[in-house]
Amino acid sequence: MANESKFTPDWTEKPPAKNSYRSVFKWGSPSEFKHPSNEWYHMLKEEFGLTDKNFKKPQFEGNEKVSLDQKITLSPKTIKGFEEIVGKKNTAVDDYSRVRYSHGKTVDEAIDLRHRIIRHAPDLVLHPKNKKDVQKIVALCHDQKIPLYVYGGGSSVTWGLSTPQGGVMLVMSTHMNKLLSINELNQTAVVQPGMLGPAYEQALNDAPKLYNTTHAYTCGHFPQSFEYSSVGGWVVTLGSGQASTYYGDAYDIVFSQEYVTPAGSFKTLEYPGTATGPKLNDIMKGSEGAFGVLVEVTMKIFRHMPGNRQRFAYMFPSWRNAVNASREMIQSEFGKPAVFRISDAEETEVGLKLFGIHGTPVDTVVTLRGYKPMKRCLCMGTCEGEKGYAKHVKEQIAKVCKKYGAMSLTGFTAGLWEKTRFKEPYMREDLMDYGIIIDTVESGVTWDNLQRLHEGVRKYIKSRPQTICMTHASHFYPQGTNLYFIFIMKMVDLKEYRKFHDGIIEAILKNGGSISHHHGVGKLFSKFMDGHLGQEQMTVLRALKRHFDPHNIMCPGGHLGLDL
Amino acid sequence: MANESKFTPDWTEKPPAKNSYRSVFKWGSPSEFKHPSNEWYHMLKEEFGLTDKNFKKPQFEGNEKVSLDQKITLSPKTIKGFEEIVGKKNTAVDDYSRVRYSHGKTVDEAIDLRHRIIRHAPDLVLHPKNKKDVQKIVALCHDQKIPLYVYGGGSSVTWGLSTPQGGVMLVMSTHMNKLLSINELNQTAVVQPGMLGPAYEQALNDAPKLYNTTHAYTCGHFPQSFEYSSVGGWVVTLGSGQASTYYGDAYDIVFSQEYVTPAGSFKTLEYPGTATGPKLNDIMKGSEGAFGVLVEVTMKIFRHMPGNRQRFAYMFPSWRNAVNASREMIQSEFGKPAVFRISDAEETEVGLKLFGIHGTPVDTVVTLRGYKPMKRCLCMGTCEGEKGYAKHVKEQIAKVCKKYGAMSLTGFTAGLWEKTRFKEPYMREDLMDYGIIIDTVESGVTWDNLQRLHEGVRKYIKSRPQTICMTHASHFYPQGTNLYFIFIMKMVDLKEYRKFHDGIIEAILKNGGSISHHHGVGKLFSKFMDGHLGQEQMTVLRALKRHFDPHNIMCPGGHLGLDL
Repeated sequence: MANESKFTPDWTEKPPAKNSYRSVFKWGSPSEFKHPSNEWYHMLKEEFGLTDKNFKKPQFEGNEKVSLDQKITLSPKTIKGFEEIVGKKNTAVDDYSRVRYSHGKTVDEAIDLRHRIIRHAPDLVLHPKNKKDVQKIVALCHDQKIPLYVYGGGSSVTWGLSTPQGGVMLVMSTHMNKLLSINELNQTAVVQPGMLGPAYEQALNDAPKLYNTTHAYTCGHFPQSFEYSSVGGWVVTLGSGQASTYYGDAYDIVFSQEYVTPAGSFKTLEYPGTATGPKLNDIMKGSEGAFGVLVEVTMKIFRHMPGNRQRFAYMFPSWRNAVNASREMIQSEFGKPAVFRISDAEETEVGLKLFGIHGTPVDTVVTLRGYKPMKRCLCMGTCEGEKGYAKHVKEQIAKVCKKYGAMSLTGFTAGLWEKTRFKEPYMREDLMDYGIIIDTVESGVTWDNLQRLHEGVRKYIKSRPQTICMTHASHFYPQGTNLYFIFIMKMVDLKEYRKFHDGIIEAILKNGGSISHHHGVGKLFSKFMDGHLGQEQMTVLRALKRHFDPHNIMCPGGHLGLDL
Repeated sequence: MANESKFTPDWTEKPPAKNSYRSVFKWGSPSEFKHPSNEWYHMLKEEFGLTDKNFKKPQFEGNEKVSLDQKITLSPKTIKGFEEIVGKKNTAVDDYSRVRYSHGKTVDEAIDLRHRIIRHAPDLVLHPKNKKDVQKIVALCHDQKIPLYVYGGGSSVTWGLSTPQGGVMLVMSTHMNKLLSINELNQTAVVQPGMLGPAYEQALNDAPKLYNTTHAYTCGHFPQSFEYSSVGGWVVTLGSGQASTYYGDAYDIVFSQEYVTPAGSFKTLEYPGTATGPKLNDIMKGSEGAFGVLVEVTMKIFRHMPGNRQRFAYMFPSWRNAVNASREMIQSEFGKPAVFRISDAEETEVGLKLFGIHGTPVDTVVTLRGYKPMKRCLCMGTCEGEKGYAKHVKEQIAKVCKKYGAMSLTGFTAGLWEKTRFKEPYMREDLMDYGIIIDTVESGVTWDNLQRLHEGVRKYIKSRPQTICMTHASHFYPQGTNLYFIFIMKMVDLKEYRKFHDGIIEAILKNGGSISHHHGVGKLFSKFMDGHLGQEQMTVLRALKRHFDPHNIMCPGGHLGLDL
């Protein structure tokens, strides 16, 4: 290879400067990093026709201090009113707070911020201490028709946190971030919505010590954003964790919710099953803050039995075989794996490079046994639950894999993936520093439409020269799965990028996928909602919106496509 | 025993007279019967202080021909308009049709009909042929503000089919009763809402022959009303089948729905998972016809593997042990049983009498081994799914049962129950013929509240002299279960009965149960809805109602408590 030099880019290991643009768009912990492997570096150069020279100097790093030239339009008296509710130290009007708490992790936002572009900001950032604060804030905003937005963990990739109409931003993760109680009999936990994944999971794991429970527990929900997403965010944006095939999506693991809306406050019924009309608990899920503020949520929890975890990995000869085997597994009723993923041919190659397996003796053996590059497909996962159950599921998976010509790679590969599974988002900053975009879209799809969606969306993405497109399926249901498309390309301007991205969504729609499997809608997909759901169904959501929020103060400006 | 005579009542074996009141209220097939066992007969006499004399002559059998003195208020021109839509032979204005299709199986209705009391009747009964018919009917009713009611299988026990405002009754089961297609890749079936359980299940079982599928399928939903309830009814009233612990409630097995509402027609999205806002598919479930007419439903289906079924039955030393063991089973994550039931002490005794086990050597052995009458509790069930899975679940259940001191009764008892499980409702007519009422209420409840609910409701029911109260739990979730109360008492007048029944619901509410686990709301529980859900949540349902049905033509008159 022409690119086999010894040069490695000087990937940043520096935390972003204080109050800088970079500190807003950088993923995760300021001092944590995950750099592309050497194999990846070579791949990027080759794919994009770049040389080491292109990786000598990072660009648009965004280390400048945030400055904002948008005036605060709320009157000092109004601001004072909010201050009286939450206290002075929980009220912020500084530029940095206004920018930080109105941006998530959408690629568009990172491109903007690297160029010091701030499209919108709230007038005021509030850190409510409790439900009462939220009730007073919502009432005040409703009375005075002040837009009100909600910020959880900040990991939205759908412009979910942007504030096109200014007003007030409510930050739930500052104070409302505690596990309030565990009900061991019912296997439920009462959680404040601003609690982030790791703190929640740790508290559940440590429940015997902290809450005097008999068993240790797990939340069962581990999205890639786990470390920087909030429990409330999981619920209101309909997230899916990496082990959702076993534990269910966020939708499935919510027992009840408590909301503050302009039309009043309520807590949904707390029954494991009930036949008393349409369920408010479900009507509110996925409302993304547009109906009101989630102030408390009771989640279903699960026994924490990490010792029972079984890992597996297989190489399939083809994507078709991997898909057919997956379908057979999930429909056979022998139980369900927890994590389960199949990568298409391109992702398999890129993945082998990412994990450092590419070019090793393992790779050689796999290739020699007939699993050809750009045909073979990687599958990996875990089985959880009671020991015998996990073992049985793993054995049955092995049988189906064998039937479809797959070769076992042992659980070691799955172990590698597990170790770094929350770290991949960190690579985004490294790549963008050198003018490369990595982004993802994901779509829910039935089995009968999976191949068409895969081919159709890949065809669109690959029709653009010099674009890497990796695809995997990672959330399995008897009726179908999701396709998660990761694409990598050289930097383009935001307008061009948006056009390309919209084209992907159009390709998804044309080929029968849903416009989002687990990232939500936010404002990014708003314009597609009417077409996707149809007028009759959108008017139902709008009727609910009018009921809960007659003055349209809750996250106005395109959220969920409700007020377009 | 004083009652040990050889006399057996002459339980009716006669099909009801044609067009009689009895033919309306009698459960199930006209020519099918299930009579109380001799043990039961003795129990009833003893409990209620009756003698053989009381069982010599049946009362109020309702064999008179139905006659109705309620005028048709719709104009001949309007009726003609409907006739033009569905055709003359699908339009009925005769007394019998008007009565038959506006009555379900609520005990109140049976008491009324036995006394030839008809409280309400529709003006017109229509049997739509297809979706287009329904669209035209809904449009016409909406335009002319004519009340429109919907009849599926006719098994409602909540006054769900009554027509307090007259108008039009739509009978879905006459023509719209077919399995339209099976999508084997997606494991879904497109079904017309009026299809009854047995026809649906048979078509799925025979799918390899009828639809050329690779596998045979099952619907997974077997409520006690299975033989005379419709697929659409399961969905809109939130039913639960006897194997719901494994297959899920009706709520869980609906993939998508198509509705005709006064505000328009739509089909909900068809994705196994999607994150595009609140889900219309869930908003419509449980709407009981008050938002619109369900005209087609896509159900999830399951592999039919009856050869893998494992049966088990245990006797626990106490209700507390049975409950604690059940909770441990459902929370241990070793997989789930399909049917799973535990009976409390009173139901256990009555059940042993029903199955003819009481007083046999088996009973003697069980008693000798320390499982005392009025303490011991019967548990039984089945395991389904893949062979190894079913076996594993059964083995784990055995372990937990042993831990809680239960004695195995072998799978034979569960087999006995299985054989007659859809037949019990037939006994109602026999009992009522001799002045005895049998009725049920059921409630969803969390584990932490189960004992309180059981004790509280039993206390209320048993505070009435000479009242049998049997209780079981039969739908299990990690967060709780249901309690199903069956009570038997001597006939009282309807007013007194209603007062007693309302008292049970009040006892349920006071003790933290839901007012219905799987029978729905209908008009029977309407008045409790505001208190149960709270004003804030009821106004949400009412906002939806206003959106879908601005003229309040869909099932008006108290349904779901929406227009009280």
